Amino acid sequence: MSKKRISNEVFQQLLIPSTATLTSALKQLGLSRSFIHGVAPLRPNMKMAGPAFTLRYIPAREDLNAGEVDNMKDVQRIAIEEIGVGEVFVIDARGDTRAGTMGDILATRLFKRGAAGVVTDGAFRDSPAIAEIGIPAFAAAMNAHSNKTVHHPSEIQVPIACGEVAVLPGDIIVGDAEGVVAIPIRLAEEAAQIAVEMEMREKFILKKIQSGASIVGSYPPDESTLAEYKVWKNNNKEG
Amino acid sequence: MSKKRISNEVFQQLLIPSTATLTSALKQLGLSRSFIHGVAPLRPNMKMAGPAFTLRYIPAREDLNAGEVDNMKDVQRIAIEEIGVGEVFVIDARGDTRAGTMGDILATRLFKRGAAGVVTDGAFRDSPAIAEIGIPAFAAAMNAHSNKTVHHPSEIQVPIACGEVAVLPGDIIVGDAEGVVAIPIRLAEEAAQIAVEMEMREKFILKKIQSGASIVGSYPPDESTLAEYKVWKNNNKEG
Amino acid sequence: MSKKRISNEVFQQLLIPSTATLTSALKQLGLSRSFIHGVAPLRPNMKMAGPAFTLRYIPAREDLNAGEVDNMKDVQRIAIEEIGVGEVFVIDARGDTRAGTMGDILATRLFKRGAAGVVTDGAFRDSPAIAEIGIPAFAAAMNAHSNKTVHHPSEIQVPIACGEVAVLPGDIIVGDAEGVVAIPIRLAEEAAQIAVEMEMREKFILKKIQSGASIVGSYPPDESTLAEYKVWKNNNKEG
Amino acid sequence: MSKKRISNEVFQQLLIPSTATLTSALKQLGLSRSFIHGVAPLRPNMKMAGPAFTLRYIPAREDLNAGEVDNMKDVQRIAIEEIGVGEVFVIDARGDTRAGTMGDILATRLFKRGAAGVVTDGAFRDSPAIAEIGIPAFAAAMNAHSNKTVHHPSEIQVPIACGEVAVLPGDIIVGDAEGVVAIPIRLAEEAAQIAVEMEMREKFILKKIQSGASIVGSYPPDESTLAEYKVWKNNNKEG
Amino acid sequence: MSKKRISNEVFQQLLIPSTATLTSALKQLGLSRSFIHGVAPLRPNMKMAGPAFTLRYIPAREDLNAGEVDNMKDVQRIAIEEIGVGEVFVIDARGDTRAGTMGDILATRLFKRGAAGVVTDGAFRDSPAIAEIGIPAFAAAMNAHSNKTVHHPSEIQVPIACGEVAVLPGDIIVGDAEGVVAIPIRLAEEAAQIAVEMEMREKFILKKIQSGASIVGSYPPDESTLAEYKVWKNNNKEG
Amino acid sequence: MSKKRISNEVFQQLLIPSTATLTSALKQLGLSRSFIHGVAPLRPNMKMAGPAFTLRYIPAREDLNAGEVDNMKDVQRIAIEEIGVGEVFVIDARGDTRAGTMGDILATRLFKRGAAGVVTDGAFRDSPAIAEIGIPAFAAAMNAHSNKTVHHPSEIQVPIACGEVAVLPGDIIVGDAEGVVAIPIRLAEEAAQIAVEMEMREKFILKKIQSGASIVGSYPPDESTLAEYKVWKNNNKEG
Repeated sequence: MSKKRISNEVFQQLLIPSTATLTSALKQLGLSRSFIHGVAPLRPNMKMAGPAFTLRYIPAREDLNAGEVDNMKDVQRIAIEEIGVGEVFVIDARGDTRAGTMGDILATRLFKRGAAGVVTDGAFRDSPAIAEIGIPAFAAAMNAHSNKTVHHPSEIQVPIACGEVAVLPGDIIVGDAEGVVAIPIRLAEEAAQIAVEMEMREKFILKKIQSGASIVGSYPPDESTLAEYKVWKNNNKEG
Repeated sequence: MSKKRISNEVFQQLLIPSTATLTSALKQLGLSRSFIHGVAPLRPNMKMAGPAFTLRYIPAREDLNAGEVDNMKDVQRIAIEEIGVGEVFVIDARGDTRAGTMGDILATRLFKRGAAGVVTDGAFRDSPAIAEIGIPAFAAAMNAHSNKTVHHPSEIQVPIACGEVAVLPGDIIVGDAEGVVAIPIRLAEEAAQIAVEMEMREKFILKKIQSGASIVGSYPPDESTLAEYKVWKNNNKEG
Repeated sequence: MSKKRISNEVFQQLLIPSTATLTSALKQLGLSRSFIHGVAPLRPNMKMAGPAFTLRYIPAREDLNAGEVDNMKDVQRIAIEEIGVGEVFVIDARGDTRAGTMGDILATRLFKRGAAGVVTDGAFRDSPAIAEIGIPAFAAAMNAHSNKTVHHPSEIQVPIACGEVAVLPGDIIVGDAEGVVAIPIRLAEEAAQIAVEMEMREKFILKKIQSGASIVGSYPPDESTLAEYKVWKNNNKEG
Repeated sequence: MSKKRISNEVFQQLLIPSTATLTSALKQLGLSRSFIHGVAPLRPNMKMAGPAFTLRYIPAREDLNAGEVDNMKDVQRIAIEEIGVGEVFVIDARGDTRAGTMGDILATRLFKRGAAGVVTDGAFRDSPAIAEIGIPAFAAAMNAHSNKTVHHPSEIQVPIACGEVAVLPGDIIVGDAEGVVAIPIRLAEEAAQIAVEMEMREKFILKKIQSGASIVGSYPPDESTLAEYKVWKNNNKEG
Repeated sequence: MSKKRISNEVFQQLLIPSTATLTSALKQLGLSRSFIHGVAPLRPNMKMAGPAFTLRYIPAREDLNAGEVDNMKDVQRIAIEEIGVGEVFVIDARGDTRAGTMGDILATRLFKRGAAGVVTDGAFRDSPAIAEIGIPAFAAAMNAHSNKTVHHPSEIQVPIACGEVAVLPGDIIVGDAEGVVAIPIRLAEEAAQIAVEMEMREKFILKKIQSGASIVGSYPPDESTLAEYKVWKNNNKEG
Repeated sequence: MSKKRISNEVFQQLLIPSTATLTSALKQLGLSRSFIHGVAPLRPNMKMAGPAFTLRYIPAREDLNAGEVDNMKDVQRIAIEEIGVGEVFVIDARGDTRAGTMGDILATRLFKRGAAGVVTDGAFRDSPAIAEIGIPAFAAAMNAHSNKTVHHPSEIQVPIACGEVAVLPGDIIVGDAEGVVAIPIRLAEEAAQIAVEMEMREKFILKKIQSGASIVGSYPPDESTLAEYKVWKNNNKEG
């Protein structure tokens, strides 16, 4: 896992385009599977970006889950007290929604520790309360059962599957009202640049379409549209 | 595909009853599968009615999807510039939600061309933006991936499957907060008449139930209730 | 089916904790599957608690469903006129959402008869209207098709499966914004007591976490935290 | 549940046509859903016909399943000692294959009691041993877990769902290498007659197709083919 | 649809390698989705290769399926009398196995007309009989219901989805005991050549592994192994 | 991961009872989920027992899978050259069968290295060839696509999920014609003893049932049956 770091400027850039534009930028960079499938925001209006801190669940087994939770041994609990400021907690729950993977107390602790968000391809429990915390949170479902009914926390900071997408520790996780995209750290800066430019161009194209233009010539833009766009972009910058 | 036409009056009638009442009218006319399964509105408050303009996707294959989109050859793009005023764009995505089937620029173009709505049994990308356009839009999910990650546009204006229901070009597509029903063009007028009458009768029955009546005698209505209903209906008309 | 009765006080207690806390209380009492899977509230802000009145559907078959509905013979209709004040109507639809299991007229009748709520692991039809009635209602989906397109009402007041959970007539059904939990009648009082206490303790722990405390020592609480909690609890009571 | 009885002659007739032909006969009689979905024979060479003796499972719950099995109270066990000679044991396991619904000892007991077969839309455990008993057995899967891991036997001799099809106690259950069809008792005699005739006609048509005939004129047969068939049929009888 | 033709020699070559090797050859040529998902042979010992003749089903609707089958109008029937010698009948049934998509009479007719095989991502009815015809046949399931219970034949010789893979008319369809691969006509010759060579090389590697060699150096082969292979291949040819 | 070792005698014992009996023994020891769901043997007649050597796949991503396979870096390849004699290779493929997880060359290498078997909750490619190798092999499906089409090998010898069951490195994996059970190493000896005894007792009970005994008194056995069993068991031993 390269621990390459991303500058604050890049994080700011990653918050500008939509996750849709970011997946297009990643496709241009050769990645076809980056958007986490089947996960929706509890609070659609909150955007999120940060490096992934990963947790992997395996199926529960009675000999692994015995006794009361021990914060020193339970891998999920350790993870929660280790996550860094600005990181996004990403959970591999094998898409199994028959139990929650986190409740409001742990989610609040993540929030207080400065985590940038939390994503699970399983369910949350206390979902209504989690929606109120103020942390961007994304899940596949709501389920009141506590995690160990179905899951056992097994590893942290290893590559995981989340919503049928590979997520490596340190991957940049970006979320918006549509869902969550995982960006390989090495591609993050380039993806940000491409996406910011793409977003601006698509904003211009959208304006043309809103004014009644056909997609022919506009989307994808032909040379004339690209020339118009350059002018518009320069004017916009000046403004 | 009979290109029988529906009068404006019939379209107005089709907007009165709920999709639930329309499926009941169709059942009375012999159809048991008319409601598109698993599709929800992005904007529950917008009603929609119009003839289907269909697009069928097949699975993506690298040799089919190579190069940049060409508006003259890409079947989806052609469809978007061909759809008529008042028509509803209906997409057969085989229920596969691992990529979007349309984004906000194309959906905006549909809106500007006067399309009455857009329905997909796959996902939208840019879903939050599509919800703001002003066009009634229905989908099974949100997914930021662009369509060709998973899909290839193959044919337009052929019979399709959408949400496990047959949709033929020209079928009348009606949508409300519950979802979308597909009405064979030949049955549309009769279905509208039955549904408007049924809706009124059920409105009356609902009032009775709200006043404390038992369903026995009221729903289905016995002769006495039907007599009451006639009076009420006449009074209502006169008012 | 023990017809043990629950006091009003216990019902009041059951409305205090979240369904998440109730499933934890039940887990403490030995039950691992009590939360109904895949069911969401139409109106997240309404809480619900009451004994289950159960209806079981089997798949539709033309010879069983022939003719118009007869309120004297149709098992669902009989159920609706038999349900008691404060009871919750719980439907086993085998998780099949290709048709509704109830519409707004029947749901309104349930409401008028004093039912405390309605839960289905299938779909509702007229969902938007049902959301407005004022009765807590939970379903897996919306589908405009009438029930007999897919379902046939077969039995009432027998043990059923709902959302992969056993529900017996008389089980106490509690719902909130997260979903629905089924509590065996014999465990209801004890579960209520445990959950109310657990909810208070978790409320205290949450406050600590919100103030910046680590989960270590707080969740689960060590002796020192438990001592603090006792003081806080006593103060709260006095307040 | 009409307890109309079927003569031995009808049972013998029901064993002549394939389950495919029987579903066609039932379709002619108005039934569109009679073939149990997703169930395969452990021994494809054994045919089976007999009245359904039904068992319905609900999801397991710890308070229902406690303690050792009591043959006097456990509903499945009671069923096994009550089933009549020639009856088919049909299990509604909600399609859940995460545990067996019967093992080899109980299946052997069914065989010894003279049961004509056993069908489950869940799994068997001891499947390889069950395949050797000599009783026709049909299941959706193999799973070694004992039934109460996932299931609780709840009722016998009530209408059930099996493989998404309604099965009523007494329905005639016919199985072959393709799977299992459920025939309403009232339609059994007529279905048998139609199917025997249909099977003979299709045998004749198949011979024509094997000799190189086009389906045009043969399938469905035109008047000339029907005339040929009559001759062939009479000759066959005489032979 | 390019109607490029494939020589008999290429067809012979396509029958040499396994479908596994062919998918690897196609991957080398840039295709990642060519193996039809979820389809198994009724007769694992029969190999098959031929150009695709496609049929597309849409969901059944009562107004489309009324009356007796008319061989002049029913699209499936027309297809069966139009398919050419050596072609493979490929059916898009949307993966819906709740009814058959073909029975033994039609499959026999395909066989008599010289079709090279039949593939469906739905079910066959009369599966046991189809297995005896002598035509390679692949399906996702067995189901006795006749096709129009669930399906309506809509188009022939158009691009389809089969087992989540695109199949175009004329694509070369190859089947063996593992399943079915669809090869774009333009890539067929090249794929055949690559696969034949790959199969020979892997045969050699397999022999080495069977003799106790490590995969290191052998698989993928290093220069020394490749040199050994050349010698072996030349010797084999001479033999 | 305790590296406790199991004696050869215990392995021999584990091969005596069926996987069904072993899951019952584990249930007695407190485990409710030990049988791997949805996995079938390619060769039903081969039994298998050995410690798990685990491999975990994550979803493929183009930047992880670039270039030719390097046996020194590819985690799956490393695993295959590291597995010990008598160990069982167990693959976590997230249940995704859209590509193979191993082909015949690697499976042959496992066999030559003395591996006791191979289990995947995904698919094999070259399945027909793998069935001939002589190594017990269990999979959820067949799929000709090479693993990296869908999967990326991520870790070895970590706890995994396989068929919705937790498998830890060193867990004893036992397979037969019904499927595969995972036994925690610490429970293996005790489970073996319980299961061998249970198997013998059930063999005796089965004989009684075969002789016409009711399950009442026999299964579960009452005191009289247990006494008979003791005698039989002693006689059998002497024999």
